[in-house]
Amino acid sequence: MKKAVVVYSGGMDSFTLLNYVISKGYEVSALSFNYGQRHNKELEIASYFCTKEYINHQIIDISNIKTLLKGSALTDKISIPHGHYQDKKMEVTVVPNRNMIFLSLAIAYAISLNINKIYLGVHSGDYEIYYDCRPNFITKINEISKLIHEELVKVEVPFIDLDKEKILSKGIELGLDYSLTWSCYEGGDKSCGKCGACVERLEAFKNNSKQDPLEYQ
Amino acid sequence: MKKAVVVYSGGMDSFTLLNYVISKGYEVSALSFNYGQRHNKELEIASYFCTKEYINHQIIDISNIKTLLKGSALTDKISIPHGHYQDKKMEVTVVPNRNMIFLSLAIAYAISLNINKIYLGVHSGDYEIYYDCRPNFITKINEISKLIHEELVKVEVPFIDLDKEKILSKGIELGLDYSLTWSCYEGGDKSCGKCGACVERLEAFKNNSKQDPLEYQ
Repeated sequence: MKKAVVVYSGGMDSFTLLNYVISKGYEVSALSFNYGQRHNKELEIASYFCTKEYINHQIIDISNIKTLLKGSALTDKISIPHGHYQDKKMEVTVVPNRNMIFLSLAIAYAISLNINKIYLGVHSGDYEIYYDCRPNFITKINEISKLIHEELVKVEVPFIDLDKEKILSKGIELGLDYSLTWSCYEGGDKSCGKCGACVERLEAFKNNSKQDPLEYQ
Repeated sequence: MKKAVVVYSGGMDSFTLLNYVISKGYEVSALSFNYGQRHNKELEIASYFCTKEYINHQIIDISNIKTLLKGSALTDKISIPHGHYQDKKMEVTVVPNRNMIFLSLAIAYAISLNINKIYLGVHSGDYEIYYDCRPNFITKINEISKLIHEELVKVEVPFIDLDKEKILSKGIELGLDYSLTWSCYEGGDKSCGKCGACVERLEAFKNNSKQDPLEYQ
């Protein structure tokens, strides 16, 4: 059976990706990172979903790296800005070099499991402010990956040209249940509806003429 | 004052590097990783040296990644092989993708500290079996680094063309005290004198006509 590691945060993009990869016939090993993010609830729901679906799942706690990563609203006590990712003010949600950290660990994991594909759910809406979500970044990561192991481990980003709306539409086609995802950066009991993650999630549902199954404050 | 992050394991190469970078007039931030290595003693000595010399030092505990990294003698209960690094059997000392993991974190740290230089002590003796110590790997890492931040963070590897003997000779010139380093992979009270790290350390001292100040079993 074809095998793949899927970087899975518990958010709607990587949830869609995980299910998309499964639908392509892969046996997946889901990999989640606890990097000290405030919206830790996404990890709980990721774990819940994988247990329910008998998916191999590792949550790797690298939250100690918080001491290195100063100045991100996702890990520090900085207010989460409201609005769109494309806004300049959303730069405080950048965790420096996050995807290189994640992918270097995912590559190590794939090597250990003898798996040669890693799926990552970056998409076109991430480009503006997240350097490490851009196509040229992924290309370079794959160039490095070629150097570090005899058997090529390749990072695949099938959603890189899609926006959140199109990703959701793919998930709707697959019949996915988005109540099993979490997006809000605030980490409250209900989604705030105001942070970048909520705003874009709600828009994606609206543009797909669907109701988001999550509850909002 | 010029500033640099130095990846510092507590071993003789990175100890020499740390002092070499200081001798070039840099204010250094030393960065060590606890990745679950058995020879944890190198971290204790790294910490001791930095405290003694008032060097900014962070030991970042990423030992949880052990669950991802199966099959390395440095982290698992596999016997440490005796002999030279160049031997095929030393491959079990490879921690998959270790330098990419370390450098992705070091780059994040440098970005947080607003520092644009990272020093890494890879050298010519590492090439044979460690893919991620080769010049083309470092070149690619720097190509990635260019993409992820407006201000270029550059990885410098001043010892990449030197072997252990020449690195030690540099350290002797600088008047360094190698009793403040640790190399043995076994992690016992005294160095074993038989593992790859001990064998090469002893040879480097012998070829420099010096006595290793460490005690051996």
